[in-house]
Amino acid sequence: MDHALFDHITTLVFDVDGVFTNGEVIVMENGTFIRTMHTRDGQALVLAMEAGYNIAIMTKGYSEGVRKRFEILGVKHIYDKLSEKSSTFEAFRQEFGLDKSEILYMGDDIPDLSVYPLAGISVCPADGAPENLERAMYITAKKGGQGCVREIIEKVMRQQGQWNF
Amino acid sequence: MDHALFDHITTLVFDVDGVFTNGEVIVMENGTFIRTMHTRDGQALVLAMEAGYNIAIMTKGYSEGVRKRFEILGVKHIYDKLSEKSSTFEAFRQEFGLDKSEILYMGDDIPDLSVYPLAGISVCPADGAPENLERAMYITAKKGGQGCVREIIEKVMRQQGQWNF
Amino acid sequence: MDHALFDHITTLVFDVDGVFTNGEVIVMENGTFIRTMHTRDGQALVLAMEAGYNIAIMTKGYSEGVRKRFEILGVKHIYDKLSEKSSTFEAFRQEFGLDKSEILYMGDDIPDLSVYPLAGISVCPADGAPENLERAMYITAKKGGQGCVREIIEKVMRQQGQWNF
Amino acid sequence: MDHALFDHITTLVFDVDGVFTNGEVIVMENGTFIRTMHTRDGQALVLAMEAGYNIAIMTKGYSEGVRKRFEILGVKHIYDKLSEKSSTFEAFRQEFGLDKSEILYMGDDIPDLSVYPLAGISVCPADGAPENLERAMYITAKKGGQGCVREIIEKVMRQQGQWNF
Repeated sequence: MDHALFDHITTLVFDVDGVFTNGEVIVMENGTFIRTMHTRDGQALVLAMEAGYNIAIMTKGYSEGVRKRFEILGVKHIYDKLSEKSSTFEAFRQEFGLDKSEILYMGDDIPDLSVYPLAGISVCPADGAPENLERAMYITAKKGGQGCVREIIEKVMRQQGQWNF
Repeated sequence: MDHALFDHITTLVFDVDGVFTNGEVIVMENGTFIRTMHTRDGQALVLAMEAGYNIAIMTKGYSEGVRKRFEILGVKHIYDKLSEKSSTFEAFRQEFGLDKSEILYMGDDIPDLSVYPLAGISVCPADGAPENLERAMYITAKKGGQGCVREIIEKVMRQQGQWNF
Repeated sequence: MDHALFDHITTLVFDVDGVFTNGEVIVMENGTFIRTMHTRDGQALVLAMEAGYNIAIMTKGYSEGVRKRFEILGVKHIYDKLSEKSSTFEAFRQEFGLDKSEILYMGDDIPDLSVYPLAGISVCPADGAPENLERAMYITAKKGGQGCVREIIEKVMRQQGQWNF
Repeated sequence: MDHALFDHITTLVFDVDGVFTNGEVIVMENGTFIRTMHTRDGQALVLAMEAGYNIAIMTKGYSEGVRKRFEILGVKHIYDKLSEKSSTFEAFRQEFGLDKSEILYMGDDIPDLSVYPLAGISVCPADGAPENLERAMYITAKKGGQGCVREIIEKVMRQQGQWNF
């Protein structure tokens, strides 16, 4: 892909399972899931929002804990329990008057495939499903839950001269 | 093995520990176990049931959370707390009028060995017990809890022209 | 070491952290720990007790869950909250009239070093502390929490013609 | 670096996430985090305090469980919910009349960078952030949550003739 595309990104939209996590979930006694995430990804989300980027979360799953966690980090746009993602993505894009080229979308599995063509840059973690690895424009070196969110945030911010530590 | 055998499969029966999980369990304060599973395996179960395959679970263990989890995913045939698996497998096969050749069974440890000869295809994850790796007809590339359920579901559906994403 | 020593083993004594687990603990909100174990190790404990071997647990730690878990598996000799292990080991040996040569002891860290000379066979998991790897008579191929308990049980039972699956 | 610097260390100050842990956190239903730690690191903290070293914890995060855990181990200086670490570090140093050269600081991520120049020895785990790996004086062979705390404690104590097991 043409890396100059990263210059236009103002908005990053993330799937949860397989991106913020390694895809594993802990099955609690009531049949609900809890998840393991990486503190460095959360740290990068905070740095990105401080620098003015829009952050949104779109997931088919539902977890009270995950929702609260992203709220605590300061994420304002959290869409969960989605049966289908592309219509939510388009509604979000139009509501905030964003151009397709401004938005980066990151997801790892089959339900994410329909969103890929709607984003300026589609991203898949290194251990995404084969179907996603084939069609994403950019594949991170890191795997889901092991810092791939931080890697892509750093990539965007560095290219735009915003990652100075 | 003759891969044409996969053409006949209508029904997939799975052990839980070491198949949907990596064999590890979290020991809670009351001595019960909770387990870690992979969302992509759950996603594949849903895709298989939508495509019309029968799915059953047979485990020696018991976990309220695991039972509820499979129920939420839509699995109708859940047999747990089994002291011995082969008689349950045979009763299941006869109740639903299934031919041995229609059923794939996947398990990773010694209690699964008695079921292997009763199934049309016996499958073991890559990190199964040595006794199981020796006798299973098919060994997945992936390990327990790391996507081996999805791999075998995709293998069956792809061979039957049902995996189109 | 002389592998014929395994012929005499009637009793296996195990440390918990770093043996049944990989040494990691989950720190709960009240500051207590819960632990992750492997179902195949539990399965091997059951097979060993069914075959008539004595099983004992000796740990410095304390966990209500771990204690209950071993009780559910049928382990009768559980010694926890130990400040020092060698005196407990000797008291256990004498109470049950066991000869040193009958007992295998498995532990991975510094508090286990004082027990090694008291057992007929001292065993350390592959990822034990350097001090333990140096002094143990036998080192398993598997790491703590990844099946090292099953490996050593199978080793003993196989040598005595008791592992037939 | 000049390894003779280790001769002067009387005090070890540690970050938590990415040092005592691998950076992963389990997101509970209420949005709080629980963490996984290694028992061998805790064992080393105890050995260091028994030998007379000062131990302090400095973290941006907050966890009731982590605080209680360090208290149970006997750690007296626990600073959490820090928005910025360097001022806390300096206040701690002055309160206890410590010279910069006496203090070793270990941290893995961007918020730790401002503390590095204030310590006699700055340490980063093998899998720290790239920015930290570049600037730390010493990098442990082990990763966060996999024994890096024990490694650095053993390194200091061994160099001072205090690690005799």
